[in-house]
Amino acid sequence: MEMYIEKAKVLVEALPYIKEFYGKTVVIKYGGSAMVDEMIKETVIQDIILMKLVGINPVIVHGGGPDINKILKQMDKKSEFVNGLRVTDQETMEIVEMVLAGKVNKSIVSHIQNQGINAVGISGKDGATLQAEKKLVNGMDVGFVGEVVNVNTELISTLIQKDFIPVIAPIGIDKEGNSYNINADYAAVAVAGALKAQKLVFLTDVEGVLKDVSDSSSIISRLSIKDVDEYIKNGIISGGMIPKVECCVEGVKKGVKTVHILDGRVEHCLLLEIFTQKGVGTMIEE
Amino acid sequence: MEMYIEKAKVLVEALPYIKEFYGKTVVIKYGGSAMVDEMIKETVIQDIILMKLVGINPVIVHGGGPDINKILKQMDKKSEFVNGLRVTDQETMEIVEMVLAGKVNKSIVSHIQNQGINAVGISGKDGATLQAEKKLVNGMDVGFVGEVVNVNTELISTLIQKDFIPVIAPIGIDKEGNSYNINADYAAVAVAGALKAQKLVFLTDVEGVLKDVSDSSSIISRLSIKDVDEYIKNGIISGGMIPKVECCVEGVKKGVKTVHILDGRVEHCLLLEIFTQKGVGTMIEE
Amino acid sequence: MEMYIEKAKVLVEALPYIKEFYGKTVVIKYGGSAMVDEMIKETVIQDIILMKLVGINPVIVHGGGPDINKILKQMDKKSEFVNGLRVTDQETMEIVEMVLAGKVNKSIVSHIQNQGINAVGISGKDGATLQAEKKLVNGMDVGFVGEVVNVNTELISTLIQKDFIPVIAPIGIDKEGNSYNINADYAAVAVAGALKAQKLVFLTDVEGVLKDVSDSSSIISRLSIKDVDEYIKNGIISGGMIPKVECCVEGVKKGVKTVHILDGRVEHCLLLEIFTQKGVGTMIEE
Amino acid sequence: MEMYIEKAKVLVEALPYIKEFYGKTVVIKYGGSAMVDEMIKETVIQDIILMKLVGINPVIVHGGGPDINKILKQMDKKSEFVNGLRVTDQETMEIVEMVLAGKVNKSIVSHIQNQGINAVGISGKDGATLQAEKKLVNGMDVGFVGEVVNVNTELISTLIQKDFIPVIAPIGIDKEGNSYNINADYAAVAVAGALKAQKLVFLTDVEGVLKDVSDSSSIISRLSIKDVDEYIKNGIISGGMIPKVECCVEGVKKGVKTVHILDGRVEHCLLLEIFTQKGVGTMIEE
Amino acid sequence: MEMYIEKAKVLVEALPYIKEFYGKTVVIKYGGSAMVDEMIKETVIQDIILMKLVGINPVIVHGGGPDINKILKQMDKKSEFVNGLRVTDQETMEIVEMVLAGKVNKSIVSHIQNQGINAVGISGKDGATLQAEKKLVNGMDVGFVGEVVNVNTELISTLIQKDFIPVIAPIGIDKEGNSYNINADYAAVAVAGALKAQKLVFLTDVEGVLKDVSDSSSIISRLSIKDVDEYIKNGIISGGMIPKVECCVEGVKKGVKTVHILDGRVEHCLLLEIFTQKGVGTMIEE
Amino acid sequence: MEMYIEKAKVLVEALPYIKEFYGKTVVIKYGGSAMVDEMIKETVIQDIILMKLVGINPVIVHGGGPDINKILKQMDKKSEFVNGLRVTDQETMEIVEMVLAGKVNKSIVSHIQNQGINAVGISGKDGATLQAEKKLVNGMDVGFVGEVVNVNTELISTLIQKDFIPVIAPIGIDKEGNSYNINADYAAVAVAGALKAQKLVFLTDVEGVLKDVSDSSSIISRLSIKDVDEYIKNGIISGGMIPKVECCVEGVKKGVKTVHILDGRVEHCLLLEIFTQKGVGTMIEE
Repeated sequence: MEMYIEKAKVLVEALPYIKEFYGKTVVIKYGGSAMVDEMIKETVIQDIILMKLVGINPVIVHGGGPDINKILKQMDKKSEFVNGLRVTDQETMEIVEMVLAGKVNKSIVSHIQNQGINAVGISGKDGATLQAEKKLVNGMDVGFVGEVVNVNTELISTLIQKDFIPVIAPIGIDKEGNSYNINADYAAVAVAGALKAQKLVFLTDVEGVLKDVSDSSSIISRLSIKDVDEYIKNGIISGGMIPKVECCVEGVKKGVKTVHILDGRVEHCLLLEIFTQKGVGTMIEE
Repeated sequence: MEMYIEKAKVLVEALPYIKEFYGKTVVIKYGGSAMVDEMIKETVIQDIILMKLVGINPVIVHGGGPDINKILKQMDKKSEFVNGLRVTDQETMEIVEMVLAGKVNKSIVSHIQNQGINAVGISGKDGATLQAEKKLVNGMDVGFVGEVVNVNTELISTLIQKDFIPVIAPIGIDKEGNSYNINADYAAVAVAGALKAQKLVFLTDVEGVLKDVSDSSSIISRLSIKDVDEYIKNGIISGGMIPKVECCVEGVKKGVKTVHILDGRVEHCLLLEIFTQKGVGTMIEE
Repeated sequence: MEMYIEKAKVLVEALPYIKEFYGKTVVIKYGGSAMVDEMIKETVIQDIILMKLVGINPVIVHGGGPDINKILKQMDKKSEFVNGLRVTDQETMEIVEMVLAGKVNKSIVSHIQNQGINAVGISGKDGATLQAEKKLVNGMDVGFVGEVVNVNTELISTLIQKDFIPVIAPIGIDKEGNSYNINADYAAVAVAGALKAQKLVFLTDVEGVLKDVSDSSSIISRLSIKDVDEYIKNGIISGGMIPKVECCVEGVKKGVKTVHILDGRVEHCLLLEIFTQKGVGTMIEE
Repeated sequence: MEMYIEKAKVLVEALPYIKEFYGKTVVIKYGGSAMVDEMIKETVIQDIILMKLVGINPVIVHGGGPDINKILKQMDKKSEFVNGLRVTDQETMEIVEMVLAGKVNKSIVSHIQNQGINAVGISGKDGATLQAEKKLVNGMDVGFVGEVVNVNTELISTLIQKDFIPVIAPIGIDKEGNSYNINADYAAVAVAGALKAQKLVFLTDVEGVLKDVSDSSSIISRLSIKDVDEYIKNGIISGGMIPKVECCVEGVKKGVKTVHILDGRVEHCLLLEIFTQKGVGTMIEE
Repeated sequence: MEMYIEKAKVLVEALPYIKEFYGKTVVIKYGGSAMVDEMIKETVIQDIILMKLVGINPVIVHGGGPDINKILKQMDKKSEFVNGLRVTDQETMEIVEMVLAGKVNKSIVSHIQNQGINAVGISGKDGATLQAEKKLVNGMDVGFVGEVVNVNTELISTLIQKDFIPVIAPIGIDKEGNSYNINADYAAVAVAGALKAQKLVFLTDVEGVLKDVSDSSSIISRLSIKDVDEYIKNGIISGGMIPKVECCVEGVKKGVKTVHILDGRVEHCLLLEIFTQKGVGTMIEE
Repeated sequence: MEMYIEKAKVLVEALPYIKEFYGKTVVIKYGGSAMVDEMIKETVIQDIILMKLVGINPVIVHGGGPDINKILKQMDKKSEFVNGLRVTDQETMEIVEMVLAGKVNKSIVSHIQNQGINAVGISGKDGATLQAEKKLVNGMDVGFVGEVVNVNTELISTLIQKDFIPVIAPIGIDKEGNSYNINADYAAVAVAGALKAQKLVFLTDVEGVLKDVSDSSSIISRLSIKDVDEYIKNGIISGGMIPKVECCVEGVKKGVKTVHILDGRVEHCLLLEIFTQKGVGTMIEE
């Protein structure tokens, strides 16, 4: 009985957080290990369902790199390169879309439906949700790589309102109906900004922003967008962390309250972030 | 970190229960020790708020014996007795109403509001919610003691719909506008039946229905209403437990899915009952 | 037959007034003789019900001095005094709340329900309607005497919309859930201001503002808030009338169209004010 | 002051009637003297507006005999006769429609709008409200004389819901779009029946049904539809009163609660009927 | 089969126009030959019904000159003249109203209902839709000739929303309830402006604005309101075309997107204008 | 000009059909040549958009055989066979789902969005729309081949209501979250039945049901479900046409008004069927 009372107390500890985020929208960029490790995957889905049930509106934007590469390879599709950059030609784009919208996306939907909660998987083409344009990479045309120029939130909002969890594959559509491959991080920022989300959470394979990369205890818990430039200049934020942090800054600028870099390798990292006083990862805010 | 992950797991364990009771109405008869002991009181309120936040609609019906007696005594109000029964004369009734609707009721509202959740305290007179008639006790007219003849759920439903937690003092009103003192257990049954509640929970000062009154481990976890007569006949259910169990049976007959006799002296007994597999107390069902 | 036709003509005379106030909110501060004299009480209730039925939304804020004093005395509660001011200690506050919210409030509800119209009695604690803070009286802390710092109109508006007449006891609540005794006049002003009421009516025991206090025919029918200072300076408004008139001025400043000091000792004074060309009492406006 | 208090009392006397008819629909067949005498006309309009303002939904169906005859004469339109029956040929029908829908109907609308209340004049053709077929008179085809075969209440209900008073000219339309002259009494019965009206009131030029036609004090206040045959057989109901009473009976059979034959020559007869205990005219009920 | 495929292609050609005008309001001033010639009349009604069915909201404002003159003559009503201007005295006004609201208006309603689509004929008096004042003509009081000072769109909007096609007779009402004859062109402009219509279409008896009046091929397809003064000065727009074009300019100024002068003598001219690339008549825009 | 008037007449000819199907749901099983030939594809999309714009609610269920085979081949996926039946193993199922939901489905969405109309592509897993179970083929377990046991119309209805065109890939989901390949014809029947559609249209590569297979002029235009057995017995319906017709019969039995076998190779065959009197293909009805 004692054990159960302890459990009840844990539930009660979550109360203030549940109150705080009730009715708010949380966009989750789902990718990396959290999408590969079956056990972590299960806990991520559980976390998202719990969020939904206690009144939060989760919206999932996913990537899908490993699956794309696997299928491209299986289909013996060779990549062209221009000045060292891989080109997304028409055929590659079709495969990318097929994998993201038909395989990765529907797999997430299955996992959620499996728990008895309704999810709807869409790509950014459905309802012209992610309106895109070709994006030059380092000034180069590398094919059907796009950036979001407008988010039409009508479909997402309809799904949220009717209590479906939206699961979004980062495929954009232009005015001619062409498909574009969108970087999933950017897609998540665009969606979170358009929805004026309370939180945007990146599930990554790092602990967060570290002061000393070799010391995981040196994590920076909160980061103001004003400090980011400074940190980049003095090299604290460096390498692959730079575009990730810049994504976070853009999210805040577009109206997201807080953006989080979480360690997706930690079980229940979403719940830890949202429902406990244990800050995990790095939070970027105004 | 491990500790926090354990906590997250506890939250996740509650998932199937949250899903099961989402959007359902749970009527809580609040009385006894759970209303006297300050610490227990606090946990009861926390439990109710958690229920509200995860999408359950709690409705509270409260008693108030100790406060009534205290104030009657303070006001030097002597009771009349007829054939050994205490008579609720006009003056007593006014005091009873004043204490229940003005003191006990508002105190519960304070505790809930104090947590940032909206509660509204009403008596059964407001919106003619508890329509009552005089009730003879053992064939005797003992004054303004009434029984509920109809529940007008309009006000309660409005409050639920607008996300206020209704807190109901068991005062009835008749067609001439007279006030009646209603037994809080019966009031709770009437309200739960009229709302077709999922659960009706009695917070009591006993462990539940015991097979052997001297052995608290002999608790009967589930009781079908068909078995109750049998149990009364062979003396397993006896004494003060008889009217309590009969109340439960009436609740089930009026359309409440399950009625529970919980031990209000156990911390978080409401959460234990609703969100864990640990059955506490006795559940009466069809 | 002639008599009946005359009666019909009276109804028709009310037409322009009914049209003017259709769908408007009228806050009635109910107190004084109008609450004590049984006959007058009956006519006040009738007037309020008629207002409701012809499409006006009445909201009642009541006082309760005589009952409070009576019960305090009955309970043998002695008052402390600090610098000559009566102190509302915790115990007194509990009694005040009990009497206002449990006795006076519910008695008004009974009278209205008795006419077949739905009323709901609330205190300012319900739904955190009257959010209060401690108020110093002449710079002195005299206990749980409060002033309204915010009115949360959500509950009142819900009740109005669902056609319940709200009856409000002037008890405030602070962020810690403490109860405060609020002056009923001020509570009425706060409520009327927050609702942007069309009218705020004080039922008092005087004819209105008189130019010559000894001559009841010297009543001032209309008073602009600009003139009030002048009238106070030159002594036309004096004594106990000053705070009452200042209340009225504050009501107008908070957005109430017109504030009225009516003679609650006159039968049907509410109807006379609202439905006939016979101005009764004094009207304060911008 | 006394006088005003008396007036307030008259308003209060109307309370139970206002409560009884709140939200109910009352269909008024407007014709005869009440439509000709300017003074009576004014009081009828006032009565209807008062009904509207206290929450009743009045619906007006009007006749227009005198105007039709006047215009026919002015236009020098000679009537054909077949076996002694006047024939409504195409040209006559056009004039009848023009006068009813363009003159009488709009004149009533003007009078109501003039009081600041919104009215909308329609004919039975608008929104295919009165769907009609040719009616043989004594087995004879007398042209565009029709009977209602169906009432499409959609337009009337829309107008009521949006707080417009519907004013209906008794013109029917058949499936080919032809116009038909409908007897206004029958049109009123059809409309009241389709709306399941609370009351259907005929404003006539008689006191009601009299036991002795020469003695206006012999009025029959209430008449059950079961008694009507008897009364016709024994000659108490005779002559022109027979079709009128049969109309009333049909109304009751179609679901109207009570049907009234009122003396439209009496000022405010509508208010007298609805808001006072003075029964005027004859009421026919189940 | 080929023929049917061609027909399907014609439907498909209309697609972009249907999309463009979906949900938009189009006000049609219906008058001239299009209202006299039975065959054209039929096609105008068909065009309006098609517009309705593909999601456009047509609103009809009609004139009625020929019918008015015919009835005035039939009724032997002589016109007074003051300084050469015909005076609309009370009696004439009544006839005008009767003809417009009771004959012309209801005839259009019949034609539409006949196609199974719901129409509601109103005059500007219904719901106080066209609020008018007396208008002096060349400084002269010529009786009940009015101009619109305000359009109350409540009734029209209600009808549109409930899928009735509004058909409006150009009769205005002033604050005293007097009727006024309103020029139908001006009434149409007032209605279209108040509704912020997408299009206002005048069905006229001319091809449109011609550069050379004697050459119907010299039609001006588009005219900016800035060019109108110039065209009037240099005589290209002259005579009766001047007030018509000025009406159009006023429409644009009041917020109508485009105003059209169409040749109502051409079959299906409405459809040609709206659903094909064949511009017919002259379009006036900002 | 003459040509345009002819075009307008074609539009007008469609009027009665537009009226008949306004607000009705039409399910289109899209497959075969109509999905392969680019030109036909374009006209099918145009037809569907026109249907949408004139107020019909189209719902698309598509197949995707050729694409599936192409990708399976490209991915070098060999099929297992059991007793001569191809087995849909886990890996094949994943590819099938990926192609149907990620390639074919999104391609249709692109084509519709390209016309400026909102479409949303879902699979039967989204919102648990197509709830399925394993289906034995000739008593054999051939892997993830399923049949629909329930259609949850909530998502489809939400999309229709918000004016998105639903495009459905025939993938089912069972209670464990497994995916199943559903025959597209059966999926269309299940969806149409659950929606109580007005029409279910199969776009096929045959003219319809022919009396003499070698004579395309021998087409049977209407077929009652009562006659089907007879026709199968006497060999008129034979071979591959039998399951197709049985599908149609099941659709009618499930509540679809009419089911159509259309020749998808004919341009605009959908418009021809719906908007012209030219019946194309075979219609099966009760």
